[in-house]
Amino acid sequence: MKISARNALKGVVKSVELGAVNAEIVVEIAPGKEITSIITKKSCENLGVKVGKEVYAVVKASSVMIGTD
Amino acid sequence: MKISARNALKGVVKSVELGAVNAEIVVEIAPGKEITSIITKKSCENLGVKVGKEVYAVVKASSVMIGTD
Amino acid sequence: MKISARNALKGVVKSVELGAVNAEIVVEIAPGKEITSIITKKSCENLGVKVGKEVYAVVKASSVMIGTD
Amino acid sequence: MKISARNALKGVVKSVELGAVNAEIVVEIAPGKEITSIITKKSCENLGVKVGKEVYAVVKASSVMIGTD
Amino acid sequence: MKISARNALKGVVKSVELGAVNAEIVVEIAPGKEITSIITKKSCENLGVKVGKEVYAVVKASSVMIGTD
Amino acid sequence: MKISARNALKGVVKSVELGAVNAEIVVEIAPGKEITSIITKKSCENLGVKVGKEVYAVVKASSVMIGTD
Repeated sequence: MKISARNALKGVVKSVELGAVNAEIVVEIAPGKEITSIITKKSCENLGVKVGKEVYAVVKASSVMIGTD
Repeated sequence: MKISARNALKGVVKSVELGAVNAEIVVEIAPGKEITSIITKKSCENLGVKVGKEVYAVVKASSVMIGTD
Repeated sequence: MKISARNALKGVVKSVELGAVNAEIVVEIAPGKEITSIITKKSCENLGVKVGKEVYAVVKASSVMIGTD
Repeated sequence: MKISARNALKGVVKSVELGAVNAEIVVEIAPGKEITSIITKKSCENLGVKVGKEVYAVVKASSVMIGTD
Repeated sequence: MKISARNALKGVVKSVELGAVNAEIVVEIAPGKEITSIITKKSCENLGVKVGKEVYAVVKASSVMIGTD
Repeated sequence: MKISARNALKGVVKSVELGAVNAEIVVEIAPGKEITSIITKKSCENLGVKVGKEVYAVVKASSVMIGTD
């Protein structure tokens, strides 16, 4: 499936932490640059997400804020 | 302000496109890796966002999905 | 790409309305059941979204609320 | 309350799964078409959500993405 | 409709600004405390939102971040 | 960091509830007006969120809906 979400950053899963309903996944998208994602535990299992796997961190543009120093 | 959003990726603004209410901003966070953001035009003006400026692309972890090939 | 978003409802595009930055797309996912989506105009163009096209309305589970009468 | 969210799809609760903070609710909105929602456990209790109950799956248009094959 | 969104803050509309697809609405929820909302122009029209009207600013808990000084 | 999110409502933490992955935080932003937030447990710990602490409830404008009676 091609998706309208403008952001799909390729990376490697660094950690997976499971709760009762949700899972927290950390993806390294560039050396020293990580993105943390919260998805349902079921999605995590359905996609076979585990440490070392190549995945995309996908974000809808309207969910991205801008910060300045 | 320190913010709970787990993701704050430093980068440089590559383009800014203004609509009536919203603005679309593209930030390069690593060579060849870009993130697109939609914020209100007023926020864009308040922060002085313009091409070349150093900014952070900020994303709440619950807004990040995971994709696999 | 397989995506962690739990909801991908197949349907047919009923209307597309373009703004300066965003586009509003209405998808019929079952007889008389429609879903409205706001995506960037660029995503709309990249995906070739137009009336009559088969698409999926994709929603992350954490973006779905529950209402009762 | 009337709400600005453009999408309110009527359906029947198929399952409820409780975590410590969140709950996962699956709603059948048409034969064979389901939507999964994550809401807080407290909202789940406040609304009396349980299997068999008629509810609406409510989604803000800006949270809906479009996918294509 | 009762809705699972945990936050429904009563207030008065201070301004409405219309774009091609979206509308920006500012609601005063307490003296000197305002909330800005972006909804579709159609929702704005459907609800009859205009300056001076009593409305609720409704936010899903998972969309609220925490900041500290 | 200055952030593009249009809404940053100052308040005091009334309660913190921890799950395995997420935390639920209630902030009083005006007498009798509370906002509930779900953030990751790690963010909660990183920011030192606890009952009585002064914090901001931060919300992107595109996450705010409007309701009417």
